[in-house]
Amino acid sequence: MAAAARAALPRPHLPLPFSSRRSPSLSFTPPSTVHLRGGAAAAPHPQLVTTRLGDVIEAQQFDRDALNEIFEVAREMEAVERGSHGAPSRVLQGYLMATLFYEPSTRTRLSFEAAMRRLGGEVLTTENAREFSSAAKGETLEDTIRTVEGYSDIIVLRHFESGAARRAADTANIPVINAGDGPGQHPTQALLDVYTIKREIGTLDGIKLGLVGDLANGRTVRSLAYLIAKYQNIKIYFVSPDVVKMKDDIKDYLNSQGVAWEESSDLLEVASKCDVIYQTRIQKERFSERIDLYEAARGKYIVDKKVLGVLPKHAVIMHPLPRLDEITVDVDSDPRAAYFRQAKNGLYIRMALLKLLLVGR
Amino acid sequence: MAAAARAALPRPHLPLPFSSRRSPSLSFTPPSTVHLRGGAAAAPHPQLVTTRLGDVIEAQQFDRDALNEIFEVAREMEAVERGSHGAPSRVLQGYLMATLFYEPSTRTRLSFEAAMRRLGGEVLTTENAREFSSAAKGETLEDTIRTVEGYSDIIVLRHFESGAARRAADTANIPVINAGDGPGQHPTQALLDVYTIKREIGTLDGIKLGLVGDLANGRTVRSLAYLIAKYQNIKIYFVSPDVVKMKDDIKDYLNSQGVAWEESSDLLEVASKCDVIYQTRIQKERFSERIDLYEAARGKYIVDKKVLGVLPKHAVIMHPLPRLDEITVDVDSDPRAAYFRQAKNGLYIRMALLKLLLVGR
Amino acid sequence: MAAAARAALPRPHLPLPFSSRRSPSLSFTPPSTVHLRGGAAAAPHPQLVTTRLGDVIEAQQFDRDALNEIFEVAREMEAVERGSHGAPSRVLQGYLMATLFYEPSTRTRLSFEAAMRRLGGEVLTTENAREFSSAAKGETLEDTIRTVEGYSDIIVLRHFESGAARRAADTANIPVINAGDGPGQHPTQALLDVYTIKREIGTLDGIKLGLVGDLANGRTVRSLAYLIAKYQNIKIYFVSPDVVKMKDDIKDYLNSQGVAWEESSDLLEVASKCDVIYQTRIQKERFSERIDLYEAARGKYIVDKKVLGVLPKHAVIMHPLPRLDEITVDVDSDPRAAYFRQAKNGLYIRMALLKLLLVGR
Repeated sequence: MAAAARAALPRPHLPLPFSSRRSPSLSFTPPSTVHLRGGAAAAPHPQLVTTRLGDVIEAQQFDRDALNEIFEVAREMEAVERGSHGAPSRVLQGYLMATLFYEPSTRTRLSFEAAMRRLGGEVLTTENAREFSSAAKGETLEDTIRTVEGYSDIIVLRHFESGAARRAADTANIPVINAGDGPGQHPTQALLDVYTIKREIGTLDGIKLGLVGDLANGRTVRSLAYLIAKYQNIKIYFVSPDVVKMKDDIKDYLNSQGVAWEESSDLLEVASKCDVIYQTRIQKERFSERIDLYEAARGKYIVDKKVLGVLPKHAVIMHPLPRLDEITVDVDSDPRAAYFRQAKNGLYIRMALLKLLLVGR
Repeated sequence: MAAAARAALPRPHLPLPFSSRRSPSLSFTPPSTVHLRGGAAAAPHPQLVTTRLGDVIEAQQFDRDALNEIFEVAREMEAVERGSHGAPSRVLQGYLMATLFYEPSTRTRLSFEAAMRRLGGEVLTTENAREFSSAAKGETLEDTIRTVEGYSDIIVLRHFESGAARRAADTANIPVINAGDGPGQHPTQALLDVYTIKREIGTLDGIKLGLVGDLANGRTVRSLAYLIAKYQNIKIYFVSPDVVKMKDDIKDYLNSQGVAWEESSDLLEVASKCDVIYQTRIQKERFSERIDLYEAARGKYIVDKKVLGVLPKHAVIMHPLPRLDEITVDVDSDPRAAYFRQAKNGLYIRMALLKLLLVGR
Repeated sequence: MAAAARAALPRPHLPLPFSSRRSPSLSFTPPSTVHLRGGAAAAPHPQLVTTRLGDVIEAQQFDRDALNEIFEVAREMEAVERGSHGAPSRVLQGYLMATLFYEPSTRTRLSFEAAMRRLGGEVLTTENAREFSSAAKGETLEDTIRTVEGYSDIIVLRHFESGAARRAADTANIPVINAGDGPGQHPTQALLDVYTIKREIGTLDGIKLGLVGDLANGRTVRSLAYLIAKYQNIKIYFVSPDVVKMKDDIKDYLNSQGVAWEESSDLLEVASKCDVIYQTRIQKERFSERIDLYEAARGKYIVDKKVLGVLPKHAVIMHPLPRLDEITVDVDSDPRAAYFRQAKNGLYIRMALLKLLLVGR
């Protein structure tokens, strides 16, 4: 949302009562990317100094209180969805969301559109905005945003360039949600991952988390590491082939936050003491012609029945999907296989964000 | 719908009171593909032993009673559509249909989406799911279905592989409708064809039907032959170029069902004694480089003013569309040209199926 | 809308009380393209001999009274849009619009779909109907229209062939809106341009208008010249590189209507005495390999701070968008930069047309 728009919005969104008490030691957000805004008017929780969520651009913008609030609303959304037949929600009735996708991502697009519809809102879709005639003719993203904001109440942007969501938000007078910008951020995925851990395990403080697979290129595991560091007594195990090890920037960040981590090459040993095994896909497209390296990396750490055999009863297997064979199909029927529930949680998280951004709590 | 889901659905569909009394001599459905399920609870027609329609996978799954019920509901849908302005139907309010199309078929997609909207429901669209980023990355259809079922209440699947709809239905915990799976089935087309005959002629028992054109490759005429065999005293005439004659499996099936049929090379003679002339397009793509054979086959049996001249007053011309020149344009204005009414009936049949699958009669 | 359909529509649209008193001296419309129809029944303005707007095919079909009526309704639409949250409009509840786009134009499509949704209506979308399986198989536009009209209440057609919208309208029994047919017409763009002048300047009679840029190829400026000629005491300045000068047919037409015009090569001089500067993009695709000519033409007339410096305080800058660098970005923040408001007006004009075509005033 453009700075100029904040003072006088044509149709102001209700404030979101995020606490402005931010824990400096836990906060990764540099001041320039803070998206919380003051404003006590109409705050349903008067005991808090409330602020407003303007845009959703990157995982790091949320502090613990903000995360807690989003997760509480997400939990409420489960009931909204269950009750939608016959008496659907009217929470976002009359609101229009534009999904501006410059690269296809059907899973993410469908879950945003389902979220909007389950709340009674409407949707404008562009499946492949890169062929948006105007973009092809050389129109800037900023000009496109200025046009589309005239037709809608909120923009969900998927773009191939890192930083595109920030540029869009700086231009728009309506809220912008980043649905992935190239190698950059995909904050709603990070939120649904953390929400799934909380929902499945019951707590976030004190959990032991095994991150497995491609830790070098996966923005998912990187964002998850940033977010989980906001909680207490976390222990992270990195389990990955040598060619795709977790990079130093994340390790340094975890150190600065006092998060314990170690690297391991023994998936069974790690699985036996974790609350969550977060498996990821080795991305073939990162290896170009070195197919031999890809094949070696790919087969090295598979979640299968053997892993289930040592995994604690209360623990869960997660995966951002799509999955190839890094989790064998015979794992699916185990109650600890949480990855399809995790995908479903994406719906609740996106419902919560749409509600919070458009009408507030 | 997955077998495991049948016992305890999260949000159970109301039962569809299909009679379970199936006529063995007319039924083509082998036991393994029966999609009718027992269950008397909440049956609105208590005098019947009711069963439930779980998925729509293939034309043969329906017996006469099921067809009658679908056709009765389709007839009611005409009034629902007529009344939609101002006071639209709320029958499927709060329900969400996902159209998962792995190959484009705009006609079929639009008619399903119109059907859902005319009943007050909402739609999630994928025009080209083959580029679904996950499918491109190697995700299985089953995993995609497990994700999409979390975002919707019913899946309409168009796929390029025969058997894909069955696999999807075996995975999903929500109903699946086959909107065409490659060279396999396209059951809603078959249903609308039979419904059109009933709607135009007034009866199905005793009709004389001329199937014209490409009888070897057209799944439409093959499905129609299967379905029409469920009725009494049917007579079928096959009129086709030698290279695209009706295959023996259908002829054998008709024999086994006691349906009279004969082949003819005289379209005028056949037209003079039929109730329905069902014309089809000769599919160029089946002839590869033998364009000469295609051209010869294509021009051989044209429905034109001469055919109209001998066709009985009460009879109709049908065609699954798209039409090239196998029916001349000057036929369109004749009241016996039923092909655009037939396309419209696709809307009513799909409304009926969506209603029956989601909320029952 | 097909002539045959006019007598007895299945679900008749309410009449639009356009005055039938047409000013012959101002009317460009030859009798064969008149789309106003007599019919006094249910006329809400009984003092007028009312007529009905059947289709929107070309800018010239509208006389001054028709334009006034559309603009009045467009103005009312601003309030409808503002009030849409919480208590959305039900004006088009239960109506279904099909956007049949044979070439992509996301801006135009989104604005039509937003217009329909803001009025409570529903949408069927085809983003790329050229790949409509039926069109690819050789189906005529007329047959496609006959199918799609069975699924919807109004068709918005974008096509690559000039005259396609007229052919569609002659076939359909429901209203058709031309959303651009190749090098032909784009009437809703012309309407929103004239509406923007009226909305920004307050009047249309007596205005001075500078048309700048590619005047040879741009259908936008050509349509605008036709429409503005319906008003009194208009003065037009053409400012363009020699290779893309305004063509003689428009000049002859303006002469025949008594509209004063002159050509100029001095943008600053023109800007200093105009009410409206209408800038356009030099279309690279028109120059094929003569990139040198394109580059020369492109840089010649730029709207920048210098132009703003001489432009009257009450005047505005317009542009149909997308914009490259023919308006510099530092102009955007000037209140006289009207081009994004102009894009927004496209929403109101399309809301007005949908309302008038489907339910009348």
